[in-house]
Amino acid sequence: MLSFETVSQSRCFGGTQFVYRHASRETGTPMRLAVFVPPQAKDAKVPVVWFLSGLTCTEENFTVKAGAQRVASELGLMLIAPDTSPRGEAVPDDPEGAYDFGLGAGFYVDAMQEPWTRNYRMRSYIEKELPDLVGENLPADMSRQGITGHSMGGHGALTIALRNPERFKAVSAFAPIASPMNCPWGEKALSNYIGPDRSAWRNYDACALIESGARLPDILVDQGTADSFLEHQLKPQLLEEACAKAGQPLTLRMQDSYDHSYFFIASFIEDHLRWHAQRLGV
Amino acid sequence: MLSFETVSQSRCFGGTQFVYRHASRETGTPMRLAVFVPPQAKDAKVPVVWFLSGLTCTEENFTVKAGAQRVASELGLMLIAPDTSPRGEAVPDDPEGAYDFGLGAGFYVDAMQEPWTRNYRMRSYIEKELPDLVGENLPADMSRQGITGHSMGGHGALTIALRNPERFKAVSAFAPIASPMNCPWGEKALSNYIGPDRSAWRNYDACALIESGARLPDILVDQGTADSFLEHQLKPQLLEEACAKAGQPLTLRMQDSYDHSYFFIASFIEDHLRWHAQRLGV
Repeated sequence: MLSFETVSQSRCFGGTQFVYRHASRETGTPMRLAVFVPPQAKDAKVPVVWFLSGLTCTEENFTVKAGAQRVASELGLMLIAPDTSPRGEAVPDDPEGAYDFGLGAGFYVDAMQEPWTRNYRMRSYIEKELPDLVGENLPADMSRQGITGHSMGGHGALTIALRNPERFKAVSAFAPIASPMNCPWGEKALSNYIGPDRSAWRNYDACALIESGARLPDILVDQGTADSFLEHQLKPQLLEEACAKAGQPLTLRMQDSYDHSYFFIASFIEDHLRWHAQRLGV
Repeated sequence: MLSFETVSQSRCFGGTQFVYRHASRETGTPMRLAVFVPPQAKDAKVPVVWFLSGLTCTEENFTVKAGAQRVASELGLMLIAPDTSPRGEAVPDDPEGAYDFGLGAGFYVDAMQEPWTRNYRMRSYIEKELPDLVGENLPADMSRQGITGHSMGGHGALTIALRNPERFKAVSAFAPIASPMNCPWGEKALSNYIGPDRSAWRNYDACALIESGARLPDILVDQGTADSFLEHQLKPQLLEEACAKAGQPLTLRMQDSYDHSYFFIASFIEDHLRWHAQRLGV
């Protein structure tokens, strides 16, 4: 039985851009995801690239702004863009409605503090529930998965891959939050969702995971030099230092004059998808 | 003196995506436009392609959703996406707030009926005021201009080009309203903006202009077969008939299963920009 209800579908570059809705066990809410199915899926299961979005985003931002479908259609990649948090009237939000916590800011963690524990389970949602549903319901070759993301979603992509290296053959990120333990966005999120014990935060920090021994074959990161969040929130130099110290291969590309917007992502998504395709045996 | 105030600018595919604001003489309001300046403009003035958007749109939709900057950067084309109507508290709107008239629905006409005459002058804005400002303020080669657009903006592109064939070397459209005189959207707009005399509507109807003798070297039109507005509003067969009868060259491509969304535009914008570039001597 199909677990995904189709919200919309549009022909796009010879494939189909779907938006699906389903009832999530992990978040206890209806969740949406955007899935691009390339034309090659008519004949065989196709490899999958996950894109995790950043603060304030839904499944829509990457889907309508990145222009990724063109290259995914050429390469035969399925693109999956999940939402960034549970949604709905019953879901607790930042008491002041801040953009960087609560709705739209799930940070890809399983919350350990009230009132967040029931709904804020984006880690288990992306790590377990959603890939199971995708494997059962879509023409996806789950033995060939890559993951990438932007900002908070770059943090999500890196930490989920570092904790599950067997699942992902390719990992990249756009302007990721390199070390949530060491920036205001991350400290706010982790202290509220996870609690005061900073040792428990290390599961959600790419630099700490690498320091603790997690490894990937390689990592590609693009970061714009005109990104207004670069210095105080993103701190790619912390990832560079952690990787250098641990011998973790990293390709960090500082992109001159690019900012934090989807114009930056659109400019380099082709490079990332080709990087993934190469490692997914396309 | 620079007439354009920069609202935002982002590096994009090696060029720069600007949003500008300026005080418009024609509309009597501040107006915004989005301009992509390709890297080639550092060395010389570059040809220009205008994109006119459809109902409910602003300068933003095409700019963030069509993925046009990639090809414009390769070909060295400036892309200009104006807003679709005057904006502001003082601007009269559809009394019932309908999406297909008033704000966001200027229909590229100069209104002749009250209360629309003061602000709804999108024809003169696009035909005279804005090209003058672009020529004075931006590195644009105004001897090489093309125009395209979507839906209401496809109607705008066709009618503006047919009335000003000397200005445009290339003309195309995505799912244009082929004959506003013969569809509900157009009849509502023209009866309200122009008035009861249908002979005055002919200036704003591509089919009527062609019937009256207006000619272009050629026209490219893409139309999705799954477009929900195809039968009752867009009616490309009326354009096909008018062109056939008049000997006006037309390339009408019915694109199987595509709808009215920007996924359709994104899928074919590269074809259109290459069509324009060829005719602009790129």
